[in-house]
Amino acid sequence: MKKKNKKVNAAILIIGNEILSGRTQDKNVAFIANWLNLKCGISVSEVRVIPDVEKIIINNVKELSKKFNYVFTTGGIGPTHDDITAQSISKAFKVKYEYHVEAYKILESYYGKKKFNEGRKKMAKMPEGSKLIYNPSSAAPGFITKNVLTLPGVPLILNSMIENCKKYLIKGSKVNSKTLNLYTVESNIAKALGSIQKKYKKSVDIGSYPFFRLGKIGVSIVTRSISLTKLKSVNKELLNLVKIKNIKILKY
Amino acid sequence: MKKKNKKVNAAILIIGNEILSGRTQDKNVAFIANWLNLKCGISVSEVRVIPDVEKIIINNVKELSKKFNYVFTTGGIGPTHDDITAQSISKAFKVKYEYHVEAYKILESYYGKKKFNEGRKKMAKMPEGSKLIYNPSSAAPGFITKNVLTLPGVPLILNSMIENCKKYLIKGSKVNSKTLNLYTVESNIAKALGSIQKKYKKSVDIGSYPFFRLGKIGVSIVTRSISLTKLKSVNKELLNLVKIKNIKILKY
Repeated sequence: MKKKNKKVNAAILIIGNEILSGRTQDKNVAFIANWLNLKCGISVSEVRVIPDVEKIIINNVKELSKKFNYVFTTGGIGPTHDDITAQSISKAFKVKYEYHVEAYKILESYYGKKKFNEGRKKMAKMPEGSKLIYNPSSAAPGFITKNVLTLPGVPLILNSMIENCKKYLIKGSKVNSKTLNLYTVESNIAKALGSIQKKYKKSVDIGSYPFFRLGKIGVSIVTRSISLTKLKSVNKELLNLVKIKNIKILKY
Repeated sequence: MKKKNKKVNAAILIIGNEILSGRTQDKNVAFIANWLNLKCGISVSEVRVIPDVEKIIINNVKELSKKFNYVFTTGGIGPTHDDITAQSISKAFKVKYEYHVEAYKILESYYGKKKFNEGRKKMAKMPEGSKLIYNPSSAAPGFITKNVLTLPGVPLILNSMIENCKKYLIKGSKVNSKTLNLYTVESNIAKALGSIQKKYKKSVDIGSYPFFRLGKIGVSIVTRSISLTKLKSVNKELLNLVKIKNIKILKY
């Protein structure tokens, strides 16, 4: 993984009717976003969930791959008729959709020549020029095409493959983050919080999120910054505010 | 709720840095999508997650409100500086961002005149001409502006408000759905499944989703259709396939 001292961003494109229908609760967004933040210094700037429709996949891959440094797609790379991610990405980049020699070998050896049927062979077909993202769980590899990384939709399998994406990514600057959980309501601190955010407009992001715990209402103040110094200054001001307003901090 | 016998669709626009950073696991998409499907016959066709940035919110509201029958936004309607959904929607539709008389009254009576501070008053400001979506949990109302329904990000509060959206929605045709859980692997049925899907291309959607349960691998076949008759025909063919291939069905 090469290192570059700048902001690197990504989009996540979830391909799957089962998420749109509400049948399946997505778990890949939070997993990928956390991994990219912590391990690669890459921020997720947009997420889209779209149906298994070729034209829609093509348009979204085109748009997002132009707009962001990387695009992570999940879903639609299995053996069935509704798995059309690989062929759609080929069309988006106007390259051939063909057998990847190494992927073919991996899958043939995993299933055995006799059981290597049509559906399984399909999982070796990818956009021309793609490089593999190895899959330690169930053999069928993901792949990277230009700046688009294609992963499966099943969270267990995706999670096992994520480290194999690293070598294809340029590392961004780490975003430092601190969370302060307060027993108060947002409207009690909204004005002061706004002033602090204004002061650190360009360097620190301050987010305010209400929570409910054991029947009590509270607010999590999440601060994020590439600069550790600025983050510390903001948190000093926040602690000062907490003291003035006599707010209890929730430690655990 | 008026009834109309046709396909009605919606997009969900999740506004919130906390989802993009992976800090918070979104739960609103599955909840809203299920509710729209079951209660309103409305299908979610696209989901986007975007940051708390005015320009990005404006562009997405503009684009999605043109593309779909309804847009549901979640997040960014609280009292703090990072809550900018209402003002952004006003700008997207080029209408004033102003106090909603009824919302102001609701909030003033909820908090009491003395405690009705600046942050709390902010929650009564909305795009001109918006209608209220009442909030039985914490008073601060959501609102509908043209075809955009704006809800809070906290799932507990959102869930309590969802029924109050109904009166603003045109009902679509109910999508019937059936799930068949099979102890097999996708590649064993991929070819046959593809043929069945081809035959019912225009009337039934067949999805195939691998699952893991108690150490066993299986596949859920989900069929969806507006026509109950077509859905039954497809499921007859699926059960025939299951019989031929000698596949065990998981009942529970």
